[in-house]
Amino acid sequence: MGMTMTQKILAAHAGLHEVKAGQLIEADLDLVLGNDITSPVAIHEMEKMKVTGVFDKDKIALVPDHFVPNKDIKSAEHCKCVREFASAHDITNYFEVGEMGIEHALLPEKGLVVAGDVVIGADSHTCTYGALGAFSTGVGSTDMAAGMATGKAWFKVPAAIKFNLTGKLPKWVSGKDVILHIIGMIGVDGALYKSMEFTGDGIANLTMDDRFTIANMAIEAGAKNGIFPVDDLAVSYMKEHSKREFKIYEADEDAEYEQEIVIDLSTLKSTVAFPHLPENTKTMDEIDEVVIDQVVIGSCTNGRLDDLRIAAKVLEGRKVAKGIRCIILPATQKIYLQAIDEGLIQIFIKAGAVVSTPTCGPCLGGYMGILAKGERCVSTTNRNFVGRMGHVESEVYLASPAVAAASAVTGKISSPAELGL
Amino acid sequence: MGMTMTQKILAAHAGLHEVKAGQLIEADLDLVLGNDITSPVAIHEMEKMKVTGVFDKDKIALVPDHFVPNKDIKSAEHCKCVREFASAHDITNYFEVGEMGIEHALLPEKGLVVAGDVVIGADSHTCTYGALGAFSTGVGSTDMAAGMATGKAWFKVPAAIKFNLTGKLPKWVSGKDVILHIIGMIGVDGALYKSMEFTGDGIANLTMDDRFTIANMAIEAGAKNGIFPVDDLAVSYMKEHSKREFKIYEADEDAEYEQEIVIDLSTLKSTVAFPHLPENTKTMDEIDEVVIDQVVIGSCTNGRLDDLRIAAKVLEGRKVAKGIRCIILPATQKIYLQAIDEGLIQIFIKAGAVVSTPTCGPCLGGYMGILAKGERCVSTTNRNFVGRMGHVESEVYLASPAVAAASAVTGKISSPAELGL
Repeated sequence: MGMTMTQKILAAHAGLHEVKAGQLIEADLDLVLGNDITSPVAIHEMEKMKVTGVFDKDKIALVPDHFVPNKDIKSAEHCKCVREFASAHDITNYFEVGEMGIEHALLPEKGLVVAGDVVIGADSHTCTYGALGAFSTGVGSTDMAAGMATGKAWFKVPAAIKFNLTGKLPKWVSGKDVILHIIGMIGVDGALYKSMEFTGDGIANLTMDDRFTIANMAIEAGAKNGIFPVDDLAVSYMKEHSKREFKIYEADEDAEYEQEIVIDLSTLKSTVAFPHLPENTKTMDEIDEVVIDQVVIGSCTNGRLDDLRIAAKVLEGRKVAKGIRCIILPATQKIYLQAIDEGLIQIFIKAGAVVSTPTCGPCLGGYMGILAKGERCVSTTNRNFVGRMGHVESEVYLASPAVAAASAVTGKISSPAELGL
Repeated sequence: MGMTMTQKILAAHAGLHEVKAGQLIEADLDLVLGNDITSPVAIHEMEKMKVTGVFDKDKIALVPDHFVPNKDIKSAEHCKCVREFASAHDITNYFEVGEMGIEHALLPEKGLVVAGDVVIGADSHTCTYGALGAFSTGVGSTDMAAGMATGKAWFKVPAAIKFNLTGKLPKWVSGKDVILHIIGMIGVDGALYKSMEFTGDGIANLTMDDRFTIANMAIEAGAKNGIFPVDDLAVSYMKEHSKREFKIYEADEDAEYEQEIVIDLSTLKSTVAFPHLPENTKTMDEIDEVVIDQVVIGSCTNGRLDDLRIAAKVLEGRKVAKGIRCIILPATQKIYLQAIDEGLIQIFIKAGAVVSTPTCGPCLGGYMGILAKGERCVSTTNRNFVGRMGHVESEVYLASPAVAAASAVTGKISSPAELGL
């Protein structure tokens, strides 16, 4: 029996010819990631374990991005802890406020992850890098500590679901709609501890930013990881951003999949996940009037340049509706600068949107857009759990940048089509 | 005995021919201001007083600017309270997130304050508008409530100190250095409940942004207000920004001043207020090495376009020092956009600074740059009290944008001269 793409990467990193779903293996790590929330816990774990060094100062990435610039004294102390650890261990890839961005947008942009890598990160959306043909997955802070100390991690080899993507997305429908559609179909535990293996000729029609968004939310279906084949577009992305050598793994023809799901991209519609689970999806035509208070466009899911371009196409020459807050957060400093160069930020400010520095902030109820009781937000982020962005009686509606931007203009959940676009 | 400029404005608004220092008067208000921290308190006071209406929906300005975009659930609830009040009373000048800016930069920009006005605001730095020849002063939330209800307020007519400014500031020395120099000279209670009446031929050499900065910090010397004569520059500023009619009041020649202080602007140096009082000033040549962790450029004191231009001149082609966070906050959306048009924001991002949306945030320890224990910040803000920007054992050094930007580059308190500028 052959192996899936994920299984092949894991086998190679465990020094094994073959692995099977369910097998426990110890794999070498190409990168260990932490942020300002999780790293301090890992650092304290290392201290408790009396570990005095790290396995490789070049293979650890520390990205304070959740509550920076520091939102309060506690977050300031956490960031200080990470800064001092990075300094003490001469960590190459520590990113200070001002050099940084949201971790899962930043690492590919900085060329720190390439195809064939095994990456763990103490953040659930570490699965994002599957877009580049890497195996990457979120872990707890204790695993991060062990990873930083030893450069290795234990994994149970995941079984797989194959998603065969065909065709081309309609206008205004993007990667976010693809993954919301899938989660709506299989549920938030539909891929529990499995790898979501994307394949099919439809992938050629997806931008890299679409793929990052799709892989990013694999965890929202419970998956261990999501992964894309490495095509010319992925190769050119890596060559543009990284000096590291990459390795392309391909699934065996007789690889085993627990399930195969065919998705014709041309049939998808703009999709919104209603409170309070990402699986509560409705397509635009199924949605009655939902009046909103706030829009957030950003996050590791949808804060990339393509996302901002789409939002700008919708907001250009228009105004955010009276009484609506529209908060736009470019995911990295580089994206921010590119967005200025392309005139996107100017469009946002003229439209009456707020543009702030890269931060995870509002996505996890951190800051920079927290909801009061009863308020509703359309957000391009990844989770709409109870109280995720503020008060327990607030509501989050997950959507694409196109729908989020259109909703900011109308003050209710809307598609660009409603604006005649 | 004649009247000062401040006394003349107050007399006119009290319907009196003459007022004297110490006299209690009731004056008509041209504008009542509140923000997201103070307005909810005032709104609750009005409810307690069973006041059901406001005196004039066009003469109240509500500017949520301190903790927006909402930093937490509590601030979200406060903003919601203000939003609902503004809606219920059809307040013309309610500024939603995205339309807004820091109140004391926004109101002059929007033309809501002009020469001859009497303005109260439930924020201590309401004295800023003295730069336009208005009487404006900070009040408590109860006075704000009464002001919103009746359009009147009681004042004790202030005695005055005359500051005779002569000459021209040297390169890199700005309004911030002028007011820090003055506070260093007279102390934080040096003008307690008095009006600081600026006069002299040196004023012609000060930009409007210099004057806003100087008037803004009058309260840091304990003053009731600070006020500038209305010259051609002030008139052209008002004509550019406002459609309202203004009235120019001039001090009588025999006006009484408790004290007259002559300041030759050409002798001033870049000045820094050390922890923990704005009066603890040192000029650059008196400062030994002070290693820092963070720089903040922004606030109602120094977040205007001139301030950003100066910071950009220093940061252009340079990098923020390794390990230093440099946070830049344009004071209004208009300034943000102008700064993009002039290429300033691009310079900041390329230098490794963070640029965020208008907010008071870090100045008062709100968010967006809070300090951990032992950290030091050079800040263009207005107060360096114990714990003002975070941990009680953190330190704030007040400085001009030029010094703040230079310090970001070197990682210690520095003047642009140290960079060869």
